[in-house]
Amino acid sequence: MTTHHTHGAVPLPGDLCRFEVWAPDRTIELVLPDRTIPLEPADRGWRRAVVDRVPVGTRYSLRVDGGPPRPDPASRFQPEGLHGPSEVVGSVFPWSDAAWKGLPLPRLVISEVHIGTFTDEGTFDAAIPHLDGLCRSGFTAVEVMPVAQFPGGRNWGYDGAAPFAVQNTYGGPAGFRRFVDACHERGLAVVLDVVYNHLGPEGNYLWGLAPYFTERYRTPWGAALNFDGAGSDEVRSFFIQNALMWIRDFHVDALRLDAVHAIVDVAARPFVEELAGEVRAEGRRLGRTVHVIAESDRNDPRLVLPADKGGLGLDAVWNDDFHHVLHVLLTGEKQGYYADFGGVGQLAAAIQRGFVYTGQYSTFRGRRHGAPPDGVGAGQFLICAQNHDQIGNRIFGDRLSTLIGFEQQKLAAAALLLSPGIPLLFMGEEYGETAPFQYFVSHGDPGLVEAVRRGRREEFAAFREKGEPPDPQETATFSRCRLNRRLLEVPSHRALHELTRTLLAARRDLASLADPSGAIYTQVDEDRNTLLVRRGSGAASTLALYNFSKEDAEIVPRGAENAWSQVLDTSEERWLGPGNTDQKLLSRFRLRPFSAQLWRAR
Amino acid sequence: MTTHHTHGAVPLPGDLCRFEVWAPDRTIELVLPDRTIPLEPADRGWRRAVVDRVPVGTRYSLRVDGGPPRPDPASRFQPEGLHGPSEVVGSVFPWSDAAWKGLPLPRLVISEVHIGTFTDEGTFDAAIPHLDGLCRSGFTAVEVMPVAQFPGGRNWGYDGAAPFAVQNTYGGPAGFRRFVDACHERGLAVVLDVVYNHLGPEGNYLWGLAPYFTERYRTPWGAALNFDGAGSDEVRSFFIQNALMWIRDFHVDALRLDAVHAIVDVAARPFVEELAGEVRAEGRRLGRTVHVIAESDRNDPRLVLPADKGGLGLDAVWNDDFHHVLHVLLTGEKQGYYADFGGVGQLAAAIQRGFVYTGQYSTFRGRRHGAPPDGVGAGQFLICAQNHDQIGNRIFGDRLSTLIGFEQQKLAAAALLLSPGIPLLFMGEEYGETAPFQYFVSHGDPGLVEAVRRGRREEFAAFREKGEPPDPQETATFSRCRLNRRLLEVPSHRALHELTRTLLAARRDLASLADPSGAIYTQVDEDRNTLLVRRGSGAASTLALYNFSKEDAEIVPRGAENAWSQVLDTSEERWLGPGNTDQKLLSRFRLRPFSAQLWRAR
Repeated sequence: MTTHHTHGAVPLPGDLCRFEVWAPDRTIELVLPDRTIPLEPADRGWRRAVVDRVPVGTRYSLRVDGGPPRPDPASRFQPEGLHGPSEVVGSVFPWSDAAWKGLPLPRLVISEVHIGTFTDEGTFDAAIPHLDGLCRSGFTAVEVMPVAQFPGGRNWGYDGAAPFAVQNTYGGPAGFRRFVDACHERGLAVVLDVVYNHLGPEGNYLWGLAPYFTERYRTPWGAALNFDGAGSDEVRSFFIQNALMWIRDFHVDALRLDAVHAIVDVAARPFVEELAGEVRAEGRRLGRTVHVIAESDRNDPRLVLPADKGGLGLDAVWNDDFHHVLHVLLTGEKQGYYADFGGVGQLAAAIQRGFVYTGQYSTFRGRRHGAPPDGVGAGQFLICAQNHDQIGNRIFGDRLSTLIGFEQQKLAAAALLLSPGIPLLFMGEEYGETAPFQYFVSHGDPGLVEAVRRGRREEFAAFREKGEPPDPQETATFSRCRLNRRLLEVPSHRALHELTRTLLAARRDLASLADPSGAIYTQVDEDRNTLLVRRGSGAASTLALYNFSKEDAEIVPRGAENAWSQVLDTSEERWLGPGNTDQKLLSRFRLRPFSAQLWRAR
Repeated sequence: MTTHHTHGAVPLPGDLCRFEVWAPDRTIELVLPDRTIPLEPADRGWRRAVVDRVPVGTRYSLRVDGGPPRPDPASRFQPEGLHGPSEVVGSVFPWSDAAWKGLPLPRLVISEVHIGTFTDEGTFDAAIPHLDGLCRSGFTAVEVMPVAQFPGGRNWGYDGAAPFAVQNTYGGPAGFRRFVDACHERGLAVVLDVVYNHLGPEGNYLWGLAPYFTERYRTPWGAALNFDGAGSDEVRSFFIQNALMWIRDFHVDALRLDAVHAIVDVAARPFVEELAGEVRAEGRRLGRTVHVIAESDRNDPRLVLPADKGGLGLDAVWNDDFHHVLHVLLTGEKQGYYADFGGVGQLAAAIQRGFVYTGQYSTFRGRRHGAPPDGVGAGQFLICAQNHDQIGNRIFGDRLSTLIGFEQQKLAAAALLLSPGIPLLFMGEEYGETAPFQYFVSHGDPGLVEAVRRGRREEFAAFREKGEPPDPQETATFSRCRLNRRLLEVPSHRALHELTRTLLAARRDLASLADPSGAIYTQVDEDRNTLLVRRGSGAASTLALYNFSKEDAEIVPRGAENAWSQVLDTSEERWLGPGNTDQKLLSRFRLRPFSAQLWRAR
């Protein structure tokens, strides 16, 4: 970063506070409860003032060109919501995680959490008592869906418009710090989902302040951010300072960059590369392991290749292909992007290589898609059987638990957790939560509310025979998405939960499963829908066997010289399965319909 | 390339002809002089027919959805101009260049030629008699400004709208073949300037045929081409087939890709990378050396890094920074992008490293610019002291010869031709041509003519005190730009020409100058505006010395252990300079104002 300015209000000793706003060609006045103070022009279009008698907790607004008072777009806290005054926030917090150094990438097993629906209260503080449960399930990390201030109290988080302010209804910055500290106390890393590709449609006070946006590109969500035109150094610094704030002031361990494919940036040094470099440097400075993980639908290996291979140097990248092929194998669905997927061969490719589409023609996309991920480690792909998007972008927000049978759910868990990618489960997936995750908002602008409703109806026009999608603005749509942990009292849910724990214990304790960089051999039978995955070598190797057909199946390993001992079979009675015959002779393996087995060399 | 279809009309034996058009959701009829034939739907939105009794030379049009007859956007010839009927062109030509294998990159010394103004006739055939002169000057290559069919008869070529058709007023495809053959006969390589970032504003018959364009991005010249969305495989194939046509059917040796920075493409495998790969493969197949050279203002080394370094694998890239710093050193101009430049240190960087801007803040661009070209060879940068753009984008299209003195012109020639980049001279620059190169068009659409006039006036509004820019549509504006070779009878022009020849002979004959990959050492004196460049090592090394000040200057080489013998001094009387004292003692070199010297180790 080149700027020596800091976006927003920074408290200094002695109740001084520095206010800095990048607003070339604008006059900015700072409106305090008792005073109005003009910010002074500084270099490159910055406006600044150091003001006395502004203790932490002071509320303030900005007046642009003599207009009405508005919140600071770099506000650290919006105690009264997105449109209200901003509040000066300090960086002092009684952290108890001094010994915490973060977790290496291969250790991550992630639970994706939406704070608003994770508990009935929908706050960070209410979430804390459930962290022990996540640890017991085998999770090592929590991915928190975006917490930047959004309009109202109900939102997935992708409509955030004050990127530095933690949502007031979740508990604000203090609440988030307590949450992160509690995670670290329990050995859980915190991944934060951050949105650097657009700002929400309501309450975006960056408009008109400076060239934050560009008309050169369009995103699905409106004007693109200006990451490569005039003024882009400051636009980049806004988001890079944001990223560093989470790492430094909130002790976050990793950032999940939302939809980097929607960041159009043709600069010789792309924003995302610069961001990753700055975050890495900050981690080194702090002596902590931090990661940058990209959600991207480009299947572009450059994102995670190192700089000397021409890459952008991110740590890991979303692998939607894994999800899509697994979903199709389990559900048989063929609509939308699922049309491109099917067959255990694709699942083998997703496990072994990462991307399935490495340049092949995609019918859904109407073009060739992706590039070969040569040089990218199997452990650099984030994989899932479901996530907020895959669930929530269905008309009724159905989870897999309501789409497929119990044996298939256990098979899905095995395929996910025994694969070398970084597994992510959507909150409650570990016990087969059935609450939907529907699209919900609480916008304040009636026109926008109507536009969102209309957009949602149009998106699902092809599914009209199923009914209308739920009303996103309706409180009930939000409430319906809350987790129902009483399901854990139901035997099948408990059994699935127990299987998840057992799979995660195996993933942790068996060297070949714990190490994503080991050898991977796959054996595909497309006719019988079976897949064998051997990982590691010699005495440390494991076999994962999958039957994605509704018939019993046999797998005869080719050239498997090992003798094996079974670790688990998802069809066992202990997880309420139909049971399997005792297998003594290991020249062939028998699998029940929709089941998986794990074997270790003996 | 994935398609097995060929855009346009391909003659087959026996007066058969295959017509193929990519036009999903359109009905296409082929209109022949004596018949109208519907094209049949084929895979992925193609329309095709193989038609008999269509000998080479047959004229045809296409009717889209029953509309009026239009030219084929992939027409190979528009004998009556851009809006007239298309003509079937054969690939048979009596080539005499069977022994020609192309030239390696370090051998290229390029004369950039605009066919319309290179001669009074403005045709390929009229240009041929001047090729011997180019050879005698020391050129090894001709770069032909775009020849794709444009509206009317006067255009720089960047308004071409039928990319496969050679401009009829230049002599059409047959004329271009004669020209290339004549070049090869004389050992001259042919570089063709091709425009793959937009289509001209008049006569673009691709609109509405298929998703060739996208609204996701904007270019300075209108809608962007769709190189990464649905259907982009076919859009890419249109331009890649175009590139391969020039290489294969016209024996072109290199392509200069116009303004690749205006090609926005976020695919994992970018179009430009695919294009370069296909051209390289075609060259191998043909057993010829071919090159792809990008004009780009991104200062992005990835363009020319190899694939295993994450690069796009092009051969060379424009280095505007070299031009800009040289121009500022010579003229002292500071307007527009020249504000970022000045100082011999920048020239040293441009010679030694390539880009001057490798991430520094650019005042003109309002952002940091470029990335370090680590791993890019000094010989992969195309450099110039002027080109059609740098001349033509001035209000009156003035060449350096009318802006700076004679000594400065000779200094410019030395700085250009003794540097390791691939030198490009704008036609006539070798003898100090004084004809301007002004912006000219001959659009047929009166509204467009007026818009171009207005755009031109607005572009130069800041220079109003100098007068109005010439009227682009006026024939006189075009005629004024024709070369005036009688200048060669004037002693100063003859002297400059002789110096150019001598410099190019030295560049060819001295090993350290011929090899761009050798060691380069520079010694900068910003106070005195002098620069020393030592190239090569030991007995093969050379010293180039430059004085960019209006005072006599001394350069004392640091640690130069060699004894040197002088090759030339631009201030010598033989090139009508003021002369210099005989230099015997070589611990220090004396340079006259605005002069250069070349020395070789002895």
